[in-house]
Amino acid sequence: MKCRKCGEQASIELRRHNAAFCADDFLEFFRKQVHEAIRKHRMFDRDEPVLVAVSGGKDSLALWDVLIDDGYQTTGLHLDLGIFEYSVESRAKCEAFAAARGVPLLVSSVAEEVGGPVPVIKQVTRRPPCSGCGLSKRYLLNRGALEHGFPVVATGHNLDDEAATLFGSVMHWQTDALPRQAPALASTHPKLVRRVKPLYRLSERETAAYAFLRRIDYIVEECPFARGATSIAHKEILNRMEETSPGAKHNFLFGFLEKARPAFERAEAVALQECARCGQVTTGTVCAFCRLSDQVKRAGR
Amino acid sequence: MKCRKCGEQASIELRRHNAAFCADDFLEFFRKQVHEAIRKHRMFDRDEPVLVAVSGGKDSLALWDVLIDDGYQTTGLHLDLGIFEYSVESRAKCEAFAAARGVPLLVSSVAEEVGGPVPVIKQVTRRPPCSGCGLSKRYLLNRGALEHGFPVVATGHNLDDEAATLFGSVMHWQTDALPRQAPALASTHPKLVRRVKPLYRLSERETAAYAFLRRIDYIVEECPFARGATSIAHKEILNRMEETSPGAKHNFLFGFLEKARPAFERAEAVALQECARCGQVTTGTVCAFCRLSDQVKRAGR
Repeated sequence: MKCRKCGEQASIELRRHNAAFCADDFLEFFRKQVHEAIRKHRMFDRDEPVLVAVSGGKDSLALWDVLIDDGYQTTGLHLDLGIFEYSVESRAKCEAFAAARGVPLLVSSVAEEVGGPVPVIKQVTRRPPCSGCGLSKRYLLNRGALEHGFPVVATGHNLDDEAATLFGSVMHWQTDALPRQAPALASTHPKLVRRVKPLYRLSERETAAYAFLRRIDYIVEECPFARGATSIAHKEILNRMEETSPGAKHNFLFGFLEKARPAFERAEAVALQECARCGQVTTGTVCAFCRLSDQVKRAGR
Repeated sequence: MKCRKCGEQASIELRRHNAAFCADDFLEFFRKQVHEAIRKHRMFDRDEPVLVAVSGGKDSLALWDVLIDDGYQTTGLHLDLGIFEYSVESRAKCEAFAAARGVPLLVSSVAEEVGGPVPVIKQVTRRPPCSGCGLSKRYLLNRGALEHGFPVVATGHNLDDEAATLFGSVMHWQTDALPRQAPALASTHPKLVRRVKPLYRLSERETAAYAFLRRIDYIVEECPFARGATSIAHKEILNRMEETSPGAKHNFLFGFLEKARPAFERAEAVALQECARCGQVTTGTVCAFCRLSDQVKRAGR
């Protein structure tokens, strides 16, 4: 196989693009996809400081790497979930990456903020751990951005993540979640920062190849709580479909964004208010984060 | 396991309903689901003659069986697809069923109507056989109903069929097909009869159980062209999801019908005209059936 760009020996084949690339041209292709995402959805400008949510995994570190190389003003924010050795290592990968590139990294601890780490949240709420963890992440990322003056948070969600989330929403026709499935979500309230996903055009396999070729040292292990998660089952289904028909994931996500999402966008946005307790945005009186935190702290007494 | 209704030994468990039934109460449950479908979507009245499309398989014969027992004025219409021994046997099953119940059966031959049987259509068009076959079926069912004065055609599509079709439409976001996915499609033109699917609430497994318990002699073999069909791959995906989460198929289809379909319904209906050649409805000048038939007949000369 030859590289589509330079004709030299290819090192990666992208079946859904019906193309192959050598290492250098693949890196170029990858960066172009990120640029195209940023441009098309007006994610952020060169003069805006961007908070990059970094887990220590391949996706978020690959994203940060591209943005740093492009000269964007980035700061990393790592949330320490307190999930045993997995979190210790994840944090160490982020710290090593930031130190090596000379870029600032903020760290926020779920145990401190919520009153207990994710394994305790799991026990107290008796719900799947991903539920309280996701809620805490969304809250702490937004609050972190607000507190440090960032107008936008960028996350490392890739094409596979987005397609799997969409698949789950569609299987249950979660008409609340469907309009929120987008590469860029605008700030609809002064206390809600913009959220963007510059990797949404790139597959998991592609971010892994980028991280490998760029010698990024990331945490390879999956979260120990991820096993059996529905999102993983959905990714497997999509992977099987992708195998028989390359481009299936891309068509599913992009077809939705182009043709179906508009049908689900509500005429009126949901009314957002400020939480009576913490002042962050909520649709109720006291936000879900404060209620979760109360529950965890009560149980810890 | 005990029957939910009578407490006797159950013979079939329906996990998605979290229920089990003895043979008699299952038959009752099955009929009720058909009645509910007819009532809820106003499919047809007692005084309307109904044309039932019968393939010779379990679904359409089970449907016909329920409607006959209920005293509806039904006539069967079998389309002989000319697919080797499979079609010979299918037709024989329909004829034997009609003779045993003393109900009228019409038979229409694709070879005569199109100019060649499905295997020839496949060769001539060089397209997947399901494409020309489906087109011919839709056309001949509608024309048969019009010619014999039936205001409505009932087909044996079950929950699995409908969920698989929806899955395919959603994976490609076929926004043209999505609003047409419904248990009942109204007549939107004088030359287009109503199309209804009274089994849409019942799974394939349930129609098989009904046919078995009612000793209906149906053709068990699948169409020889079905192997490798995308719809079968989609059914397998849905079956795996159903296994880990009973009710998944039901929720997918019913959630769509309740929450998402309205979003896709177009403000304006597509403008239907009469085909310049055969007078049946089409969106163009000459309908797809006439064009197919031309192609097949030309090739046969």
